[in-house]
Amino acid sequence: MSLLVVGSTAFDTVETPHGIARDCLGGSSTYFALAARLFTNVRLVSVVGDDFPPASRQLLESRGIDLTGVEVKPGKTFRWHGRYSADMNSRSTIDVQLNTFGDFKPKVPAASKDTPFVFLANGSPGTQMSVLEQMQKPKFCVADTMDLWIERERDGLLKLLQRIDGIIVNDAEARMLTGRHNLIDAGRAILDLGPRLAIVKKGEHGSFLFSHWFHWALPAYPTSAVVDPTGAGDSFAGGFMGHLATCDTVSLWNMKRAIAYGTVTASLTVEGFGVDRLAAVDRAAVERRYHELLQFVSF
Amino acid sequence: MSLLVVGSTAFDTVETPHGIARDCLGGSSTYFALAARLFTNVRLVSVVGDDFPPASRQLLESRGIDLTGVEVKPGKTFRWHGRYSADMNSRSTIDVQLNTFGDFKPKVPAASKDTPFVFLANGSPGTQMSVLEQMQKPKFCVADTMDLWIERERDGLLKLLQRIDGIIVNDAEARMLTGRHNLIDAGRAILDLGPRLAIVKKGEHGSFLFSHWFHWALPAYPTSAVVDPTGAGDSFAGGFMGHLATCDTVSLWNMKRAIAYGTVTASLTVEGFGVDRLAAVDRAAVERRYHELLQFVSF
Repeated sequence: MSLLVVGSTAFDTVETPHGIARDCLGGSSTYFALAARLFTNVRLVSVVGDDFPPASRQLLESRGIDLTGVEVKPGKTFRWHGRYSADMNSRSTIDVQLNTFGDFKPKVPAASKDTPFVFLANGSPGTQMSVLEQMQKPKFCVADTMDLWIERERDGLLKLLQRIDGIIVNDAEARMLTGRHNLIDAGRAILDLGPRLAIVKKGEHGSFLFSHWFHWALPAYPTSAVVDPTGAGDSFAGGFMGHLATCDTVSLWNMKRAIAYGTVTASLTVEGFGVDRLAAVDRAAVERRYHELLQFVSF
Repeated sequence: MSLLVVGSTAFDTVETPHGIARDCLGGSSTYFALAARLFTNVRLVSVVGDDFPPASRQLLESRGIDLTGVEVKPGKTFRWHGRYSADMNSRSTIDVQLNTFGDFKPKVPAASKDTPFVFLANGSPGTQMSVLEQMQKPKFCVADTMDLWIERERDGLLKLLQRIDGIIVNDAEARMLTGRHNLIDAGRAILDLGPRLAIVKKGEHGSFLFSHWFHWALPAYPTSAVVDPTGAGDSFAGGFMGHLATCDTVSLWNMKRAIAYGTVTASLTVEGFGVDRLAAVDRAAVERRYHELLQFVSF
């Protein structure tokens, strides 16, 4: 089944201990779409400036991503410049220019309103809710969020949590959202806020899945070739939602596999600057790594 | 088969956000032995002062722990006073009195020199080596260490690593020992130093097993009832070595199960102050939690 993602498209300048990459294609919806296209058809809803080059459009379209929902507005595309610490566990923003993304009002194309799987990439809860209101009862809708919205738009976020099926957050966000330090406590507390699925990402430590019926843990894929962590979270979400969109039902077993696929697509992303590695791989590479991950964690 | 542990016996005063416990029985060898006794016969080599009360001796002996190797010296037993941070991820030492442990020279009783499984709990590499020299070719010997020895007695530690089968360290120690930040890199690098097994503990994030033939990861048991983290690492080692000592061979499958048992015994320890919870549980409680852990991580 088809999958729709709403989020940012950007050009990133990234500094890590492995070097610097300037103006590489990035943004939450781009990473998500390039991961999810390895599994299913992806419809992208985003905004770019009139500086968005044909080569970037071609890169996405050649991988089967439907860009009908990408609005081109006069001005420049969103730009972000970040620098990672020596251990790559933290990063600082050197510069951010929202440009055309500054007043992003997502417009879901008429033909995409019935897309059954929906991912609301990081954005203000109001913007995320405006997408939900354009959709015709999606089968499965998952959202991302960040510290900024948890702090500043808590009410809007709590309303959104009542409307979606699942949320994917990192450990710090789970703690901030619930006020619980223990992640098992925090995961359970997220479910009390509305969604029937909460995934808590822990970077190199893997991820937890929480539902009312079971909790589950999966370690990360054991890569030692981390070059640039940017986009890992969105690539995880892309692999997760991409696999689920190919399944008949959203069951425990399918979610476990989906989290493993998300773990794999995230591990591929971080092994190159920007989307380089993720855009280059094919499904066979994903399957190889999926089976390696299974070996790594199998009892 | 029998299992011998060499390490400290202490009385700890512990402050955590859940309260304060004064002068509770502790020490690395005590936690280890109380975890390992759930699986096999344990011989304890340690030192205490003449203040060591009959009740503490009784607690250990009543659980089948052989105290023949526990020397009683004039003076006081080792005392430690620590305080955990609000999130219990860090702790500071308020007071430490080595007392009779200050010049601990472990003496392995003649009848214990042929013990096949040996655990060298945290201690100076010189002290650990002196134990090895008293033993008659143990079948499987594993050591613990800490930042102090990695920094100050690196040469001695590197010599020890050439003589033992395995080492159990936490993530910070693995990084310090190898100079590698990435834990997969660090784990591999430890193997280059000699041992054929390296276990890297990551607290709430579980643990990694490294060998030349396979790497493996296991998440932690999902407890939200952490009261006092003291002794978690030694209890992990006790469950790990305790289970292995019951196996015919040290195989991949037996090591995986041993790490799961170590994860379970550590999770029990942290749910009470000091050794309270660990000393109270029986094997049936361990088995229940072992099966819960398997469900939590099974694919």
